[in-house]
Amino acid sequence: MQNFTYYTPTKVVFGRGTEAQTGALVREQGGKKVLLHYGGGSASRSGLLDRVRQSLREQEISWVELGGVVPNPRLSLVYRGIELVKQEQVDFILAVGGGSVIDSAKAIGYGAAGEGDVWDYYAGKRKPQASLPVGVVLTIAASGSEMSNSTVITNEEGWIKKGCRNDLCRPRFAVMNPELTMTLPPYQTACGCVDILMHTMERYFTSAQTMELTDGIAEALMRTVISKAEILMEEPDNYEARAEIMWAGSLSHNDLTGFGGDGGDFACHGLEHELGGLYDVAHGAGLAAVWGSWARYVYRSCPARFLRFALRVMGVVDGSGWEEIIEKGIEAVEAFFRSLGMPTSLRELGLAPTEEELALMARKCAASAGGHKGSARVLYEKDMLAIYEMAR
Amino acid sequence: MQNFTYYTPTKVVFGRGTEAQTGALVREQGGKKVLLHYGGGSASRSGLLDRVRQSLREQEISWVELGGVVPNPRLSLVYRGIELVKQEQVDFILAVGGGSVIDSAKAIGYGAAGEGDVWDYYAGKRKPQASLPVGVVLTIAASGSEMSNSTVITNEEGWIKKGCRNDLCRPRFAVMNPELTMTLPPYQTACGCVDILMHTMERYFTSAQTMELTDGIAEALMRTVISKAEILMEEPDNYEARAEIMWAGSLSHNDLTGFGGDGGDFACHGLEHELGGLYDVAHGAGLAAVWGSWARYVYRSCPARFLRFALRVMGVVDGSGWEEIIEKGIEAVEAFFRSLGMPTSLRELGLAPTEEELALMARKCAASAGGHKGSARVLYEKDMLAIYEMAR
Repeated sequence: MQNFTYYTPTKVVFGRGTEAQTGALVREQGGKKVLLHYGGGSASRSGLLDRVRQSLREQEISWVELGGVVPNPRLSLVYRGIELVKQEQVDFILAVGGGSVIDSAKAIGYGAAGEGDVWDYYAGKRKPQASLPVGVVLTIAASGSEMSNSTVITNEEGWIKKGCRNDLCRPRFAVMNPELTMTLPPYQTACGCVDILMHTMERYFTSAQTMELTDGIAEALMRTVISKAEILMEEPDNYEARAEIMWAGSLSHNDLTGFGGDGGDFACHGLEHELGGLYDVAHGAGLAAVWGSWARYVYRSCPARFLRFALRVMGVVDGSGWEEIIEKGIEAVEAFFRSLGMPTSLRELGLAPTEEELALMARKCAASAGGHKGSARVLYEKDMLAIYEMAR
Repeated sequence: MQNFTYYTPTKVVFGRGTEAQTGALVREQGGKKVLLHYGGGSASRSGLLDRVRQSLREQEISWVELGGVVPNPRLSLVYRGIELVKQEQVDFILAVGGGSVIDSAKAIGYGAAGEGDVWDYYAGKRKPQASLPVGVVLTIAASGSEMSNSTVITNEEGWIKKGCRNDLCRPRFAVMNPELTMTLPPYQTACGCVDILMHTMERYFTSAQTMELTDGIAEALMRTVISKAEILMEEPDNYEARAEIMWAGSLSHNDLTGFGGDGGDFACHGLEHELGGLYDVAHGAGLAAVWGSWARYVYRSCPARFLRFALRVMGVVDGSGWEEIIEKGIEAVEAFFRSLGMPTSLRELGLAPTEEELALMARKCAASAGGHKGSARVLYEKDMLAIYEMAR
């Protein structure tokens, strides 16, 4: 078991109608002038933005607005946000949306509180020393950014996607009303469920010594996501299932499910990252497309983990031997992905990469990880290429 | 499922040797002058206090000391602490110890930051508006006070024990080195394990609608506590088991295991509270002594919960019907208590209360709860008396 720091200061206000408390929460944090940051039209069409504006008005908090955040949030909009925040003397950033909006808000928070180019933090040239406080009204259960210390931004110059992890950006509060996620398209709900499941799987599949309590929590979370995601495919308005998925999304990526471990494997995230760089694929769908191949490539390096997963999470009850039980567990995950309409191969993802493209992705994946990645099994460029080949 | 607020801002620094980081953590929180607050001689004898002093020295943080906290921490010492803090212009309170020391530190934090008598907050006359920041170096896994918003103080005038719950007192950081708990007497380790288990049981046994994810986390935590507590009875120096119990102690009472519920039952805590008031009993032992009787008195009001508990937590596999499975689950808990040397009746606790004493306790228990208590089954004075009778 490894030493560990666990820090989740975000105040979660969870349940029906909680967006009405947004203004009071900003006030509690000392915010007087807000940047209201959001994405496209859905938050506006649903009336959510109006309810949030009303709650700010009730607390006599003034605000300026910046919409237009897109998936894989862009650095150019972050720059505009920073300029606006400085110009308008904004002291609190309120993200109304999903992971992209939250990540963009975090970037603006860093840029407005610090000197110099905010991209330096993402490029790894400097570490953030301060951030404006960020609050969240969550509309998509997926990224876990509402409680995490992570933000990922895409620099349009060269289309470079980079992350920055620092506790300074953990949101001060997260308003989570599961009803707000009921109008998501099924494909987006499914992608979110895969992303949530994968955040815990990446931590669970490891060669490090783990904690029984952490493993038990992780297994409970994975079972919950799998059973509730299947309900949501049939009943998108099921409040209880929406709530379970939403809370699972936050716990899955706030480090609770990795406590005492080695930080996790995250090779699938690395493999997906390069897919996302080369093709326009949704993050959750890309993860689903590579996971099975990754699992079959690595399981012999930590069979006990995969066996336990098959028995305790996927409900496999028998097999002619341990390898068959593990294979049944992997197949059960793939069957789950398919039940959500998610792909289990690059072909099902709609991609037909050439050998050269696979080699390029493997090279970039290894390079961006500093040569190797993974804990369940340490993967080098040749391993990454082999997994891409298997995933075809 | 109920709306819920979840707020656990405490930065947990967990693992071997982490007490060396204490000074740096105080500095990170802006502390310049510390009140070093502790109990009896064990923290001194073990060298822990010296290591903490050294870490303060290294950060050039000055401090004053106040030892002498006893179980059921006293108001008189809190008053002395408040005076000392004001006199010495202390800006940070560092608790080195278990729940009693932490609760005393929280009380001093309230008293030093507010006007008037600090007891008012415990007597329910006023609500705290501010607190000095509190940090913790934890030496006993039991109360969960290191992450909780609760503090319980005993006023020697009339020996009144009262609690105060407010997010202002949640510690800023908690240093948790499982090694520090290895020298506890076995009885104290056992009492701590019961306390931890009960903090989750009190939330788990409810008639409210719960969340699958919350239940799964609670069940994983209860299974972990039971299996690791039994290891500690044989191997008190087992680091992994100490670590599991220590982390379980924090998660058990920081509201994670009650998320989305109704706040829990807590009738056993109420029943034990009166035992503790009338006799000198350890909290964990008192809880163990009444739990079985409580469970048999209430299970018919929420049989599905008790059935699930028997099957998923206590590993009961069969029975001639649901009541037998439930009874086997209750018996398994009692067997666990006995394996720790804990009592399962008042007699085993060394008490032989008269009818008058039982009636007095039931009256006080009902009165202090405002007439009734409980969620698994709502208990009135006559029910409380019946449970005390059963527990004899």
